[in-house]
Amino acid sequence: MTAPSNLNIVPFVSVDHMMRLVLKVGIETFLTELAAVIEDDFRRWEQFDKTPRIASHSKEGVIELMPTSDGTLYGFKYVNGHPKNTKEGRQTVTAFGVLSDVGNGYPMLLSEMTILTALRTAAMSAVAAKHLARANAKTMAIIGNGAQSEFQALAFKAIVGISELRLYDIDPSATERCARNLAGKGFAIKSCSSSQEAVEGADIITTVTADKQYATILSDNMVGPGVHINAVGGDCPGKTELHKDILLRSDIFVEYPPQTRIEGEIQQLDADYPVKELWEVIAGKRGGRQSERTITLFDSVGFAIEDFSALRYVRSKLQETGLYIDLDLLADPDEPRDLYGMLLRCEAKLREA
Amino acid sequence: MTAPSNLNIVPFVSVDHMMRLVLKVGIETFLTELAAVIEDDFRRWEQFDKTPRIASHSKEGVIELMPTSDGTLYGFKYVNGHPKNTKEGRQTVTAFGVLSDVGNGYPMLLSEMTILTALRTAAMSAVAAKHLARANAKTMAIIGNGAQSEFQALAFKAIVGISELRLYDIDPSATERCARNLAGKGFAIKSCSSSQEAVEGADIITTVTADKQYATILSDNMVGPGVHINAVGGDCPGKTELHKDILLRSDIFVEYPPQTRIEGEIQQLDADYPVKELWEVIAGKRGGRQSERTITLFDSVGFAIEDFSALRYVRSKLQETGLYIDLDLLADPDEPRDLYGMLLRCEAKLREA
Repeated sequence: MTAPSNLNIVPFVSVDHMMRLVLKVGIETFLTELAAVIEDDFRRWEQFDKTPRIASHSKEGVIELMPTSDGTLYGFKYVNGHPKNTKEGRQTVTAFGVLSDVGNGYPMLLSEMTILTALRTAAMSAVAAKHLARANAKTMAIIGNGAQSEFQALAFKAIVGISELRLYDIDPSATERCARNLAGKGFAIKSCSSSQEAVEGADIITTVTADKQYATILSDNMVGPGVHINAVGGDCPGKTELHKDILLRSDIFVEYPPQTRIEGEIQQLDADYPVKELWEVIAGKRGGRQSERTITLFDSVGFAIEDFSALRYVRSKLQETGLYIDLDLLADPDEPRDLYGMLLRCEAKLREA
Repeated sequence: MTAPSNLNIVPFVSVDHMMRLVLKVGIETFLTELAAVIEDDFRRWEQFDKTPRIASHSKEGVIELMPTSDGTLYGFKYVNGHPKNTKEGRQTVTAFGVLSDVGNGYPMLLSEMTILTALRTAAMSAVAAKHLARANAKTMAIIGNGAQSEFQALAFKAIVGISELRLYDIDPSATERCARNLAGKGFAIKSCSSSQEAVEGADIITTVTADKQYATILSDNMVGPGVHINAVGGDCPGKTELHKDILLRSDIFVEYPPQTRIEGEIQQLDADYPVKELWEVIAGKRGGRQSERTITLFDSVGFAIEDFSALRYVRSKLQETGLYIDLDLLADPDEPRDLYGMLLRCEAKLREA
C-alpha cells in the first residue's frame, strides 16, 4: 500500500469489512496465509520487543494492552475478557488493534480484532500442530465448542490436514451449533457425549473451554502416547484446563515463557520447570516432536507478536480489496508547529459556511 | 449519554469533530470545564490504578501507551514523540485515546487526542498554577512558542487570570506566529529577544521548548522570589529545561513521582529528593504555596489520569453536540458464542445481494 496522501488519514477495517475480507479471500486461504505471516514473524522472534501484556483487572474481568515492535513496525491490541458478558448478549472477548510506523510514530492501520483474534488464535494453534503433531494426524477432538471452535477446526483442516472432528461441550447446544456451522466444510463430524468419548482415537486434542477457574477438562488417563494437545482455553491466572499429571508427561511448548508461566497451563508447575519455546522449532533452532510416542503440548495463551502478524497481514490486503474506510484520526496542520492555527482556520471556514 | 442500542458501535470523535467541538463550546470554556474535570479526578487520586506509561523507544522517537482506571471507567492514550517529524511535515506528537466500561470491557469512546492532549496539558498546567502561583499573578513568560504555547496562554487566561504575555523562542518566526494567533484574544503581548528579557517581571514562567536534550532554558539568576515555574517541555529521559540550581531553590510539585523522576526536571536530582504530589494540594490534604517569596515549580510530564479526565469530558459533550460518528468496531453476533455463525450469515447476505 502506498502512503496515504493525507497525513491525517488512518485506514480503518470495521467488523463488516473484516467479515467481507475473510469471505473474499476465503477463510481457509485467509488462515493459511495468516499462518505463513505468523511463521515468518516467529522465525525472526529475536528482532521483536517483547513485553508481557499490561492488564487492568477488575471484579468482572480484565482489559489488556498487548504491544510489540520489530523495530520497523509497532503494533498493539486492546482486548477485554469478561466471562459474564455472554449473559448480557455481549462477547466475552472483544478486541481492536493498531499498526504503526516506528520511524514517525504514525498509526497506519486501525482494525477490529474480535474476529481477527479468533482467526489468529486458530492459525497459531495450527502452526504449532504442524510442527509438533504426528505427520499423519487426521482426527481432532475439540473440547469446548464455543466461539473459537469452528475457527480451530478450519485452521487445522487447512494447515494440518485434519478431516475428522470429535466434538464435546458440557452444553450440548454448543456442540450442535458447531457441527451445524461446519456442515458441508469437508469434515467427518462426530458429536460426543463426554470428553472421554471425544478423545478416543484423536491424534490432536484441542481444549478450548471458557470457564474462568481451575478446571480439569482432561484427566491423565485420557491422553495416550503420541497425542498432540492444543491447550487454548487456559489463558489467565487461575484458569487452567489440564490435570497437572498430563503436563508432567508432556513435552511442553510455549509462546513467551514469562507470560505463559503466569497465564498458561504451566502456572501449575514450578517457575523453573523446563519448557521449550515454539519459535525455536519454527526457526529450525531445535527439533519439535521427538518420537511417535511423545505427548506434545502447545500451552497457548496468545502473544502480542501473533496480533502483530495478523495486523500486518490485514494491512497487506487493503489495497487489493479496498475493504476499509479512511478515518480522520490524526491532526495534520499545514504547518506542524501551528496546531492552534488549525483551530483558527477551522473557525474561519465555519464562519464562511 | 444513553448506551448505544447497537452493541457493535463505538462513538468516534475525529480531528474535524474535535475542532468543531472546541469551537462550539468555546476554547476558554472548554479549558475551564476540562480543568474542573481534572481537578475532580485529582481529588479522588487514590481511586485510580496508576501505571507508568509503557514506552517503545526507537532511534527516531518513542511510542507510548498510557492506561489508567478508576474502577468504573478505563482509559488509555496512544501517543508518539518524534522530534524529527516536523521536518517531514508531520506532528512531533500525535495521539488518540479510548474510554471503556470496566464492567464489560467494551470501548465507549474512540477519540483523536492530538488536539485534546494540547488542551489537557494546558488545562493541567493552569490547574497547578491556580493552586501554586501567587493569587494576583497577571504576567506570564512563555519560553518556547511552538504548538503548545497558545493553548497554555489561553488556559492561564481562563483559569488563572493571566492578561500579559512575554514570549520568547530561539526561532523568532515561532514567536511571531504565536503573537499573531493570540491577537485579539484579550492579552497584552510582548515579543522578547531573549529568555532573560521574557522573564522580567513575570509572575509565572512557562517553559515549553521542544529540544530532545539536556538544555538550560532557564538559568538560576533568571528566577526571582515568588515566581511560579510551569515546566512543561522537560518530559522524557534526557530532556530537561531548567538549571539544577533552580530546582534546589524551589518547592517542587509533580503529578506521579515514579514517572516524573524518570521523565521530568527532577531526573537531575537524587531519586529520593523530596517532592510534593499535586493531587494532595488539590484535594486539600496539604498546602500549596508557603509564602509570597517561595519559588514554586510544577514539573509537568503529563499523566494518564489527565487523559482519562479529557476523554471523560469529551464523552460528556457527545449527546448535546452530536459531534461524532458511529464506528462499527466491535463484533456483535446475535448469539455471543456464535462468532463464526456471524461470518456465515454475512456470507448468505452477500450471496443474496
